Amino acid sequence: MLRIALAQSNYHVGNLDFNKKIILDKIHQSINQNIDLLVFSELAICGYPPLDLLNYHHFIESCNQALAVIAVECKNISVIIGAPTMNPDINGKNLFNSAVLLQNGEIKAIRNKSLLPTYDIFDEYRWFEQNKSYQCVDVNGVKIALTICEDLWNIDADPLYTNWPMNELVKESPALMVNIAASPFDFNHEDERKNILRKNVSNYHLPLVYVNQVGANTDFVFDGGSLAMNADGSIVKELDYFKEDFLVVEFDETKKEFNKLETVVYPTPSKISKINNALVLGIKDYFGKSGFQKAIVGLSGGIDSAVVLALAANALGSENVHAVLMPSEFSSQHSIDDALSLVEKLKCTHEIISIADIFNRYEMALHDSFKGTSFNVAEENIQSRIRGNILMALSNKFGYILLNTSNKSELAVGYGTLYGDMCGGLSVIGDLYKTEVYQLANYINSNEEIIPFNTIQKAPSAELRPNQKDSDSLPEYDLLDAILFEYVENALGANAIIDKLQNAETVNRIIKMVNANEWKRNQFAPIIRVSSKSFGRGRRIPIVAKYN
Amino acid sequence: MLRIALAQSNYHVGNLDFNKKIILDKIHQSINQNIDLLVFSELAICGYPPLDLLNYHHFIESCNQALAVIAVECKNISVIIGAPTMNPDINGKNLFNSAVLLQNGEIKAIRNKSLLPTYDIFDEYRWFEQNKSYQCVDVNGVKIALTICEDLWNIDADPLYTNWPMNELVKESPALMVNIAASPFDFNHEDERKNILRKNVSNYHLPLVYVNQVGANTDFVFDGGSLAMNADGSIVKELDYFKEDFLVVEFDETKKEFNKLETVVYPTPSKISKINNALVLGIKDYFGKSGFQKAIVGLSGGIDSAVVLALAANALGSENVHAVLMPSEFSSQHSIDDALSLVEKLKCTHEIISIADIFNRYEMALHDSFKGTSFNVAEENIQSRIRGNILMALSNKFGYILLNTSNKSELAVGYGTLYGDMCGGLSVIGDLYKTEVYQLANYINSNEEIIPFNTIQKAPSAELRPNQKDSDSLPEYDLLDAILFEYVENALGANAIIDKLQNAETVNRIIKMVNANEWKRNQFAPIIRVSSKSFGRGRRIPIVAKYN
Repeated sequence: MLRIALAQSNYHVGNLDFNKKIILDKIHQSINQNIDLLVFSELAICGYPPLDLLNYHHFIESCNQALAVIAVECKNISVIIGAPTMNPDINGKNLFNSAVLLQNGEIKAIRNKSLLPTYDIFDEYRWFEQNKSYQCVDVNGVKIALTICEDLWNIDADPLYTNWPMNELVKESPALMVNIAASPFDFNHEDERKNILRKNVSNYHLPLVYVNQVGANTDFVFDGGSLAMNADGSIVKELDYFKEDFLVVEFDETKKEFNKLETVVYPTPSKISKINNALVLGIKDYFGKSGFQKAIVGLSGGIDSAVVLALAANALGSENVHAVLMPSEFSSQHSIDDALSLVEKLKCTHEIISIADIFNRYEMALHDSFKGTSFNVAEENIQSRIRGNILMALSNKFGYILLNTSNKSELAVGYGTLYGDMCGGLSVIGDLYKTEVYQLANYINSNEEIIPFNTIQKAPSAELRPNQKDSDSLPEYDLLDAILFEYVENALGANAIIDKLQNAETVNRIIKMVNANEWKRNQFAPIIRVSSKSFGRGRRIPIVAKYN
Repeated sequence: MLRIALAQSNYHVGNLDFNKKIILDKIHQSINQNIDLLVFSELAICGYPPLDLLNYHHFIESCNQALAVIAVECKNISVIIGAPTMNPDINGKNLFNSAVLLQNGEIKAIRNKSLLPTYDIFDEYRWFEQNKSYQCVDVNGVKIALTICEDLWNIDADPLYTNWPMNELVKESPALMVNIAASPFDFNHEDERKNILRKNVSNYHLPLVYVNQVGANTDFVFDGGSLAMNADGSIVKELDYFKEDFLVVEFDETKKEFNKLETVVYPTPSKISKINNALVLGIKDYFGKSGFQKAIVGLSGGIDSAVVLALAANALGSENVHAVLMPSEFSSQHSIDDALSLVEKLKCTHEIISIADIFNRYEMALHDSFKGTSFNVAEENIQSRIRGNILMALSNKFGYILLNTSNKSELAVGYGTLYGDMCGGLSVIGDLYKTEVYQLANYINSNEEIIPFNTIQKAPSAELRPNQKDSDSLPEYDLLDAILFEYVENALGANAIIDKLQNAETVNRIIKMVNANEWKRNQFAPIIRVSSKSFGRGRRIPIVAKYN
C-alpha cells in the first residue's frame, strides 16, 4: 500500500521563497501523516509560466538552490516536484522541464518533458529541450511512469507530436502513472482534460495520479481539478476547483488500483459559473501577487462595467473597490441612475466627476486645428480618453489598479478607444463575448438583483454622441458573436463562415474590422483567459499584414 | 556553368497578390536573362513572419494556390522559393517551413526546415514540424544542398539543436549550398551572419548562395545582404543593404566555385549608420504596408522627439510629417525655440497647442478627489496624457499615424507615462538606449546641423514639474545604459552586474525598476528592433511575477 498525497497549490511565478514555503509546509504535513509519496505540480519551484525568467542563468541557479533546500527535508518520504533543470548535454537547449524525484534527502531521479506545447498561449520549446529517453522511477518498490502534462496529450486523431512517451514507459510494466501538470483553465478544459486522462488510463490499463496547479498568474488561470483515477476511468478522488487543496489516496500496488473508500468527486458546474470563478480568481491573484489591494473601475451604467464591478467586489471585497462615474453631455440620466444603484447594492465607494467641462476645453484647444471638420470619431475618442486620464490620475494618486471593462466583441472589431476605455492594468472580461457578458450578469443576479435589470435590458450604447447605439455601427450581438467565434476560436475563413452563417456582407465587413484592429489589441492589457482562444498571448497576428 | 540569380525582395506579410507579382516579375526577368536557377528568400510567398495567419487553413490554401500559379510560369528555368507546405504525415504539426524547387512548370521537390528558431523574436516551432529527412536537389545536373536559414546556424560552441542538416546533406557530395533566409537585422547581425556563413563554407568545403529577405514588417527589419560566397570564404557578389536587389552569379560546377568577374562587395558601415538605415526603412514600410502616408509627432524640444522627427522626415518626406508642440506652464522657452528651429530646418508642418488650460480644468475636476495631497507623479502624468489625447485626436481626425518617441532607457525603467508619452502606433527609437539616441542625433547632423546643437547639449528633462531633470530620478545615462545592457541584452543577474560595474545600490535599484514596469511595456507599441534584445516580442517576462 502506497499512501500518496496530491498537493494542489497556488504558486507565485518567480517568487521562490514564497513557493518554497508552500512546498516545505506540505512536505512536513505529509511526513506527519505518514505519506509515502507526495506529488506537486509542474514547475512548482518557480510557478508556471516563468517565461523568459528562464533565460536568466541566476534564476535557474536560484531554482536549483531552492530544490536543494527542499530535497534535504525529504527524509522518510518520496516527493515528486516540477522544476527547471540543466540539460547535461552540450547539444540542444540548456534546460529541461523536469519532474524531480526526491528521496533520502537528495535528488534521486530527474525525468524530463518530451512533448513541449508550443501553440496558443504556450511557448515551451522557447526554453526547453525535448526529452528523448524514457525510464520509470521507483517509489518503495512501486514502478511509476512519470510524465509531465502535455506528455499525456498526444492521443487525438491528428497527433501534434511524433512520439508518445507512455508508449515507451509501458515497456517497463509500471504499476501507476503520475502526471504533474500546469494546465490552464478554459471553460471547456475540465471536460477535455478528463477525456484525455480517461483515454490514457484506458490505453495503458494503468491508474493515474494527476496533479495540476491552481491559481492565476496574470492572463493564465489554473483551475486545479487534480485527481486520482483508476484504470477503469473512475475518479477516486478529485481535488477542488479554483482553490488550493490537498488529498491523500491509498494505492494498492498488487491490485494496481486506488482504494475506493471516501471517494471525493465534484459535479461539473455550468460554463458560466466556471467563468465567474475563473475571473474572480484571476482578479484576486493579480492583485495579491502584485501587492495591490484596491481596484478602480469607471462605471458607465452599461453592462460591461457593471459586471466588472461586481466581479471585483467579489474578488477583493467591496471596501477595496472604487467606482467612478464620469458623465458627459451625452450621458443619459438612466446611465447615472443605474450606476448609482449598482454602487449602492455592492456598497462600493464612488465618486462622480463630470467630463463636460474638460471636453469643452479640448474642443477649444483644437478649435483651429479642427476648423471645417464635423464631429466624428475623433471627438468621441477625446471623451473616452479624458475618462482614461481621470481614472489613471486617481490610480496614480491613490495606488489603485484600474480594471479594464472592454469585452471580447468590441476588442475584436475595434469598437473601443485606445488609451481611453481600453485603459487598465488587467482586462477582466476581455475574453467574454458580449452575449456571454449578459449571461454572466444574469448568473451574478441568480439570487438577487445586483446588476440593475435596467442595465441588462436597455440597448447598449457608448454614449459618445447624441442617441448613439452600438447597433448603429455593429450587427446585433448574437450574429456578431457567432461570426467572431467562427473567425477567432475556429479560425475559419470568410467563405467557410458564410457557408455556415450566411450574411456574406456582414461577415466580410466584420472580418475586415477584426483584421484592421490588431494594432489596437497589441497595446491592450493582459486578458484573463477563459476561452480556448483569447486575444493576447494566444493569438499572434502580424500588425502591418494584409489578408482577408 | 550554372547562371544563378539572387532575388532579394521586400514582401508584404499576408499580401499574396502583392508578393506573387514581385515573384512573377523576377521569374520573367530571369527567363529573359537566360538564368538557370533563380532563388527567392524564405517564406517569400507569404512574407516573413506570417505568425498565426499560418493557423488559418484558408491562408495555407491561398499560399498553395499562389505557388501553383507561380510554378506554371517556371518553364526553362529552375526556381527555389520559400513557402509553407502541408506535412503529409498525420503525426506532428500540420505544416513545414519549406524551400520549394519549381521546374518544368511544376513543383519538382520540397525540402523542409529542420532547425526551427524558437527564441527571442522567433516562434517557428509554434507552427512548423521539424524536418528529419535529408536529400539534395538537382538543378541541370548540379547537386545542391538546399537548406533554410537556421539550418546553417547550429555551429556554435554551445549548439542549440541536436542535429546538423548539412552533416547529412554532404553525404551526397553536393557541389553547392543554397540557403534561403529571413534573417532579421540587428546592429551586430551582419558580422555574425557572415561569420556563420564562412564557418559553413569552410566546414563543408562548399560554395554558398544565400538569399535573405529585405524590408520591414512592423517590428522586424530585414537588411538583405544576400550573397554568393566561395568555399574559401570570399564573397563574390553581395546584394545591397536595406533595399531590394537582384544579381546574377555564374557557378562553375566543375571547379565548384563562382566566377569572380565583376565582384560586388560593400564596405561594412558603422553601427549607427546601420541603425539609422534600419529605422528609416522600418518607418517607411510600416506606413507603406499599412496604407498610411502621414505621420504626427509630439515635439518637446528634447532629443528623443527631435531624432524621431528627423527619421520620419527622411522616411516619409518632410511634407508627410506633422509636428505638434504642446507647451505647458512647466515648458521652458528653449524647448519651444529648439523645437521650432528643428521644424524649420526639416520643413515639416507644425502647430502649437497649449495644454495649460486643459490641465487646469483637470485640476479643477479632481480638486475634491485630490484634496490634501501634494503635486506628484499623478499630476505629471495628467499632462503627459493630455498630450497623448491631443495627438491621438489629430491622428483620428486627419488620418495620421502617431510615432512614439520613447527610448529604450526610459522604457526599461518605466520613466514614461502609459497612455501619455507612451502613446503611438509605432515606436521608432524604443530599441535605442539614450546614449545611442545621442549618437544617432550626431550621425544625423554629420553634414549639417539638423537637430539643434542646443537640443543635444542641454540636460534632458520631462518638464512635467518646475526645474525637473532626468537626473533627479535616474543615474547618469552612461551608467544607466551600461546597467541596462547587462541586464537586458546579456541577461546577467544583479550580482554579476555589480561585479562588472560596481554601484551596487544603483544596480539593485535599476533592476527593481525594470522588473516593476513589465505591465507598462506590455501595453506599448511595437518597437522597430535594431538590437539583439529589444523589448516586446523578443522579451517575455511575466507581469505579476516577483523576482530580483
